[in-house]
Amino acid sequence: MGVVIPLEDGKSKPASVKPLVDLTKADMERVNQLILSKAGSDVEMIPEVANHLISSGGKRLRPMLTLAAASMLGYEGDAHIKLATSVEFMHTATLLHDDVVDESDMRRGKSTARMIWGNQASVLVGDFLLGQAFRMMVDVGSLEALDVLSTAASVIAEGEVLQLSVAKNMETTEDDYLAVIRAKTAALFAAAAEVGPIVAKTDRAQRNALKSYGMNLGLAFQLVDDVLDYGGSSADLGKNVGDDFREGKITLPVILSYRRGSQEEREFWRRAIEGGETGDANLEKALGLINRYGALKDTIARAEHYGTIARDALAPLPASAHKQALLDVIDFCIQRVN
Amino acid sequence: MGVVIPLEDGKSKPASVKPLVDLTKADMERVNQLILSKAGSDVEMIPEVANHLISSGGKRLRPMLTLAAASMLGYEGDAHIKLATSVEFMHTATLLHDDVVDESDMRRGKSTARMIWGNQASVLVGDFLLGQAFRMMVDVGSLEALDVLSTAASVIAEGEVLQLSVAKNMETTEDDYLAVIRAKTAALFAAAAEVGPIVAKTDRAQRNALKSYGMNLGLAFQLVDDVLDYGGSSADLGKNVGDDFREGKITLPVILSYRRGSQEEREFWRRAIEGGETGDANLEKALGLINRYGALKDTIARAEHYGTIARDALAPLPASAHKQALLDVIDFCIQRVN
Repeated sequence: MGVVIPLEDGKSKPASVKPLVDLTKADMERVNQLILSKAGSDVEMIPEVANHLISSGGKRLRPMLTLAAASMLGYEGDAHIKLATSVEFMHTATLLHDDVVDESDMRRGKSTARMIWGNQASVLVGDFLLGQAFRMMVDVGSLEALDVLSTAASVIAEGEVLQLSVAKNMETTEDDYLAVIRAKTAALFAAAAEVGPIVAKTDRAQRNALKSYGMNLGLAFQLVDDVLDYGGSSADLGKNVGDDFREGKITLPVILSYRRGSQEEREFWRRAIEGGETGDANLEKALGLINRYGALKDTIARAEHYGTIARDALAPLPASAHKQALLDVIDFCIQRVN
Repeated sequence: MGVVIPLEDGKSKPASVKPLVDLTKADMERVNQLILSKAGSDVEMIPEVANHLISSGGKRLRPMLTLAAASMLGYEGDAHIKLATSVEFMHTATLLHDDVVDESDMRRGKSTARMIWGNQASVLVGDFLLGQAFRMMVDVGSLEALDVLSTAASVIAEGEVLQLSVAKNMETTEDDYLAVIRAKTAALFAAAAEVGPIVAKTDRAQRNALKSYGMNLGLAFQLVDDVLDYGGSSADLGKNVGDDFREGKITLPVILSYRRGSQEEREFWRRAIEGGETGDANLEKALGLINRYGALKDTIARAEHYGTIARDALAPLPASAHKQALLDVIDFCIQRVN
């Protein structure tokens, strides 16, 4: 029996996305080439707008899931490259449309495409990338992969509309919120992971395992994103903190603080989120309440819950470097809050 | 030999869409059922927004092309119902996004969805309908139909972006304009007609014939639409006349009037279209110039040119009621200007 030696700060070694990045490096270079090629058009505005977002330094976690899932299961063709690119295009199209829907000025520290080229270009270039994504899937020729990804496209849009219809409504429950993030975020993670076993033509159990892994990883990822929007586990006022608050977006930290608060505090939340009183003083007050009720800590605990489900989903698969990399990503996603 | 007896006004009997409507009536009832079912969602806002546009009395010409093309070639399954519905959803999604892009208040005499539910809902419900369209195509399981329709989706978006980048630029040529309408309008007409022979599994020649018919019908249709926006062949000031002018949209009547005009008149067009001076007085002046240079008459002549190509494309196909109905639609589309 070994003895666990705790590191100096009492925490285990931080998880990293690096093993996943390393294992998919060669394939991701091909994905990046295909992204540039399929975002191309004689209509100059299309590559301009697309590349603005594509080159803005997203992690490309979703296509890496597709690549790793396929390779882990012994796939050696190139369908996974096209499907991974399709997944990234679906994600990029969603971001372009989200920025229009949320009227966002900034994303990843840069002006949004809609601020530079207008809402029109963001809507239409998003539509173009979605069309290109479907063309690549059709090119792969797997009706099963097409089924999974086209269903994801519908579900994502449905989730975004659901989010719109619960927006600025403080009576939104944790279940409503979960339904939103399951659709708008987790469904694409699930589809990205599921098309790996589909192209590898493995059995249904492995397909379900990867789908469940992706779905629960996606939930954990979004929960942590929503914590980060309030400054991470410490709830410090930092850069870009409070965007969700200012937009009146209902996320779990807000839902928990509201439900656990006093009558007077609930009235504050309604004035802020429903009434639009979201200035800096109110943001500071909101952060104070979020801290008092442990809403970030408990949102992270929810993320860990889904992370554990993701981990268990992969348990039946044989040990491999790819499997370990996918497990590391769960912890990496959750540890982003620290 | 018969003698052609002219009708009292010297014109031949007006063409009608009625034969096409009658021949596809039973199938269109199934399409309409499927539209309602696939626009459904537990997220209430989705059917609300979708049905607002779906029930607003569009002619549903595009799905009728799919149905008629499949039936004409002896197809008896139900794949054409799903593909026709997909085509209509692609069209509806485009309209929802177009209204956001054009900042339109009215469509078909009703407030646009974006005026009632906001830009957000229009963008996202459009995305949802596009996702549902792809799911139905996948359900049909024809990779050829998927290829044709997913390519059309990309091309349509590309055409819309092209339109955006030539907007308010008076140096736009007739060729530029044709490239725009070929992509944004004619490509979906072509795809709608082409998937008929695809599900009917007929030979390549018939597929090409229907595709060419659809493409050229679509060009004629859009040219006539652009004439109608200036009041039809008489260029009278009527209701909804001049929307394109007020939006600074470059259509063929404007391109012809500009190119045929004097230096002074070209300056007027630049002030109006590029400079945004599109008040009622300038619209009246524009209509006067359009009349003086025969720009509507000559745009209609262009439409007739493409209508003739569409007619010739169908020539090799054996005579049938369906073929005659498709031919009648060409004349119907063009005679709308009178």
